[in-house]
Amino acid sequence: MPLIRLTLEYDGTGFHGWQVQPGCRTVQGVIEEAVATLIGQAVRVSGAGRTDRGTHALGQVAAVPVPDSWPAARLGAALRAVLPGDVAVIDARAARPDFDPRRDAVRREYRYRLSAHPAALDRSRRWHVRQPLDRAAIRTAASHLVGLHDFTPFTVHADEAPRTELRLEIAEVHDSGEELMMVFAAHHFLNRMVRLMVGTLVDVGRGRFTADAPRRALAEGDRRWVGTAAPAHGLYLVRVDYAEGE
Amino acid sequence: MPLIRLTLEYDGTGFHGWQVQPGCRTVQGVIEEAVATLIGQAVRVSGAGRTDRGTHALGQVAAVPVPDSWPAARLGAALRAVLPGDVAVIDARAARPDFDPRRDAVRREYRYRLSAHPAALDRSRRWHVRQPLDRAAIRTAASHLVGLHDFTPFTVHADEAPRTELRLEIAEVHDSGEELMMVFAAHHFLNRMVRLMVGTLVDVGRGRFTADAPRRALAEGDRRWVGTAAPAHGLYLVRVDYAEGE
Repeated sequence: MPLIRLTLEYDGTGFHGWQVQPGCRTVQGVIEEAVATLIGQAVRVSGAGRTDRGTHALGQVAAVPVPDSWPAARLGAALRAVLPGDVAVIDARAARPDFDPRRDAVRREYRYRLSAHPAALDRSRRWHVRQPLDRAAIRTAASHLVGLHDFTPFTVHADEAPRTELRLEIAEVHDSGEELMMVFAAHHFLNRMVRLMVGTLVDVGRGRFTADAPRRALAEGDRRWVGTAAPAHGLYLVRVDYAEGE
Repeated sequence: MPLIRLTLEYDGTGFHGWQVQPGCRTVQGVIEEAVATLIGQAVRVSGAGRTDRGTHALGQVAAVPVPDSWPAARLGAALRAVLPGDVAVIDARAARPDFDPRRDAVRREYRYRLSAHPAALDRSRRWHVRQPLDRAAIRTAASHLVGLHDFTPFTVHADEAPRTELRLEIAEVHDSGEELMMVFAAHHFLNRMVRLMVGTLVDVGRGRFTADAPRRALAEGDRRWVGTAAPAHGLYLVRVDYAEGE
């Protein structure tokens, strides 16, 4: 069947993550059900990244096999009509028959939002860190993460990863006063990697670690210099890029 | 009992508005329950504005009577510990014994957020208007609302309002491309007034009315030039001001 590539935004609050799990509401499951309802047969939808429970997406990419009678524009409009309010189809376009959103991606960008303010409106959108943070130390620590490293200390289930060495292209810290936003980009990320990097950077900001901690964790392969994973609800999969022309 | 003045932020999504109603979860009800649990007796909490079901607040003001053993800082900290996540205490301070947050307010500011983008993350925070909007026409129409007018066409239950003539100080339209934000400020507002003004401005933007509609509605006292009330979930009570020194 022809493949349609979808770009999706979702509010992770009401989902047990991306990946289908029996008895749980997941983004993949909700999309698969919606497509099945529309086309009248069960399909398997694949995604670029397996976001955790509570993690949001502004630009997740998915591939959906559909019959010829469902061109991209028709599928996009129909999905917008049937999907629940916490998933939105940003874009729908035809993909080549062997397009694989996970394997073909050349770059992923994540964002993490932190707030010092105990907000009611953004409580499921940002991590509220009560302690004052040393932002200069966080910036220095973040700079140590950039580059080609073995990120084993910054993942869980390192044994399951095909390759733990990767190049972190971007680790930026944007400070708007009211909010601290961290941006990370790489070809791919390991399981739990962004949340462990953020947890470590926040521990640097709180003074639990020195700004040297990420450098030591990477150089020595030592998890003692890695903090607890930051909560999933501050994390956003911002975009997934593919080779030009895709 | 001494009075404490609270500044509150809340996510209106899970509330049937501010005002206590039997059998409904309301902001006033949740605060009254929390205070009663803390001090061991029932109290009546008063608020500056009765926000509608689904409407949010960044700076609602409330007054809470408490025994002397509950100074403001203690009450604020205790409320932060017991209130649900969708209400946050931004500030708690001692008020004079006859402080009335509604009657004593000298200025209220509201914000309304509109989006052209069918967002999943902000679905309960902004009104998604699918049609393209003529922003210049909206700006012109908004300018007709500013000043001293009888706002009877822009309210429901005008007979219940003590006075329908009032001075709208500000009606601004901020365009960030992705979002249209409207800001309104006045000494006070009538029931449903902001949502009816926004509904009218959006009808101007969609071409249903000319930019002259608000002027005609006010001059002729005619509801035919007033649109349907905009949905409550795009509306925010931003702040309530009091005379200097309060």
